[in-house]
Amino acid sequence: MIKDNFIPQIPYGVKDFLTGEAARKRALESGAAGLFARWGYQEVVTPTFEYLETFDSSTLSEQAFKFFNREGRALILRPDMTCPIARLVSTRMKDADRPQRLFYIANVFRYEQAQAGRQCEFYQAGVELLGSSCAAADAEIVALAVETLKNAGLDNFKVSIGHVDFLNGVVESACLAPRDETRLRGLLAGRDLAGLQACAAELAFAPALRECLREALFLHGGKEVLDKAYRLAGNQTSARALDNLKSIFTMLESYGAAAAIDFDLGLIRDFGYYTGMVFEGYTPGLGFPICGGGRYDNMMRFFGEDCPAIGFSAGVDRLLIALSRRNAAAVLDPGAYIAWREGFFAQAAAAASELRSKGRRAELAFCAQSADEAFKSARGRELIYI
Amino acid sequence: MIKDNFIPQIPYGVKDFLTGEAARKRALESGAAGLFARWGYQEVVTPTFEYLETFDSSTLSEQAFKFFNREGRALILRPDMTCPIARLVSTRMKDADRPQRLFYIANVFRYEQAQAGRQCEFYQAGVELLGSSCAAADAEIVALAVETLKNAGLDNFKVSIGHVDFLNGVVESACLAPRDETRLRGLLAGRDLAGLQACAAELAFAPALRECLREALFLHGGKEVLDKAYRLAGNQTSARALDNLKSIFTMLESYGAAAAIDFDLGLIRDFGYYTGMVFEGYTPGLGFPICGGGRYDNMMRFFGEDCPAIGFSAGVDRLLIALSRRNAAAVLDPGAYIAWREGFFAQAAAAASELRSKGRRAELAFCAQSADEAFKSARGRELIYI
Repeated sequence: MIKDNFIPQIPYGVKDFLTGEAARKRALESGAAGLFARWGYQEVVTPTFEYLETFDSSTLSEQAFKFFNREGRALILRPDMTCPIARLVSTRMKDADRPQRLFYIANVFRYEQAQAGRQCEFYQAGVELLGSSCAAADAEIVALAVETLKNAGLDNFKVSIGHVDFLNGVVESACLAPRDETRLRGLLAGRDLAGLQACAAELAFAPALRECLREALFLHGGKEVLDKAYRLAGNQTSARALDNLKSIFTMLESYGAAAAIDFDLGLIRDFGYYTGMVFEGYTPGLGFPICGGGRYDNMMRFFGEDCPAIGFSAGVDRLLIALSRRNAAAVLDPGAYIAWREGFFAQAAAAASELRSKGRRAELAFCAQSADEAFKSARGRELIYI
Repeated sequence: MIKDNFIPQIPYGVKDFLTGEAARKRALESGAAGLFARWGYQEVVTPTFEYLETFDSSTLSEQAFKFFNREGRALILRPDMTCPIARLVSTRMKDADRPQRLFYIANVFRYEQAQAGRQCEFYQAGVELLGSSCAAADAEIVALAVETLKNAGLDNFKVSIGHVDFLNGVVESACLAPRDETRLRGLLAGRDLAGLQACAAELAFAPALRECLREALFLHGGKEVLDKAYRLAGNQTSARALDNLKSIFTMLESYGAAAAIDFDLGLIRDFGYYTGMVFEGYTPGLGFPICGGGRYDNMMRFFGEDCPAIGFSAGVDRLLIALSRRNAAAVLDPGAYIAWREGFFAQAAAAASELRSKGRRAELAFCAQSADEAFKSARGRELIYI
């Protein structure tokens, strides 16, 4: 049974949370859960794996861990929580009142080149809001994302908002063949400037369109960006997208969240999935978004529930990294160490129980000790010798 | 992309926690985490999957979900948390002070015939205590298990303690051929009375051994059981096991936990894994143990860290079932519904923020509403109309 050459190892791409990290993770997740509940969101928990078909509407399934159960059905370790919640809502919560506010704190799994902040298993705290297409719903989600980062203790971050229909309108106005349109969308979603220039030259875009494409990816900044965008994109779809962003921003001002917001009209995330406002949160020194979300009004249809939907998730692991770079680690109560002389175990157990009932951390010795031994064993904990 | 015949389904053997259940699960898990911390245990979090070899020391790997990563290495969805924690301790916490107290709240995965209380994915709250072979360590683990059930709100339960060496001593005293010994152990671990009788007849056991085997599995009850057991098993190994149980029980009296304890000398759990005291907790009306654990002093050796170890885990799903059968469901604060007239969004957002800052649950309307509409939308929530 025991192999001579066995060397214990953690699998590639996943991580352990040691004692201090795990405590910070629990505090952060509990804090987010409490915040989401105060905003009217209710938690749901779904299984770690789903049938593969549940993710057929998601491009994430390409990056997923897949396997078979004993009946030969294909399973997938969930690469996100949006599809599982859509599956849950469409099977067991069809008759719930809408708008419906749900939240989750969950691990998800994707094949990634592992590095700090990018792991194959990572933790998300997020919400889904089903059944409202109002701009106030978009504003609530962005405001809650801002509040989630603040609540976690992050003080230096920006949330950039954009709208997929701004660039959708620009692309449509080019009246391209489907193949060329797909190519252009891919270049825009990838923010591929060199590719965009080549494409514009090759397809002989009109000068106004060329200028718009050249500028679009740089439309990043304060409110003035919207005015510039209106001028650049002279089409109705783009203008409606900008109107929508304006309404959302006005409401974010009401939430007192506007200082943390800027605009990024080159932000797309995923043309196929998102249908309206999209956003990502950033903090200096971390090369990845710390949260992200948007509106995806077409997704629920796949699950037989045609209703508008919007959501976001924050990366728990990334938040922990960002916070550890900023704050001194929280100091854990070292607690009390309760040592006992031969024959005094009962008194020591009672003393431990008394401290614990007051919420203190109390560790009881396992063997009778002399005062000297007890002093050596206490190692920074308050010594109680009985 | 969208299949016409797609019917959203949850995979066989796993479950969703809907809004109320998920909230009760979070409360129970947070409560256990707080309790474990007060007893000096520190949380660790390990990945959901491990390399298959990490479970080579465990018979649980037979029941496990296995798959391959892209590099072709075999992975296993963890069927318990003891092996992952042993792997963690032996790779990253070798130099930590002992005794070392660790806890986890985690999901584990086993192929099971699914039924209420027996799922393929289930949640455990448990602890591992490394580095002490004292009876006081055993007593702490049992006392903490009792406290965990009480802390969860369970008021009607028993924790039965036994010791693998009681029956080990009986088996050894029979001086059987290895094959027959293995057979006898299998029958004892499975509490197979008919098989035991047949085996005793076939192998022509002495009358004293026959009587002992016949009685052993029924040695279940209060302290008087120990006296009877001393008389029945006249061997040193069994007597030492009973002495150990006596010491542990005396300490459990000091903890004030004795009323919840009885003895079950037929309790084995797993001869190959456990090396000393073992225990299981039961509550009426639930056909499965609600918690279980014991001493496994040989396990850490497999991971290159030869140290005594003991632990237990409580079944979160089972506790939730037991509690739901006992208590009326906790009533959730329905919170406030904040509706607004056209032009008053900012005031409504401020009112929501004010309530949330006081810890109240506040849901904000997404569109301007008339007073009538607001009244209809409030549905049981406190209506605030601005």
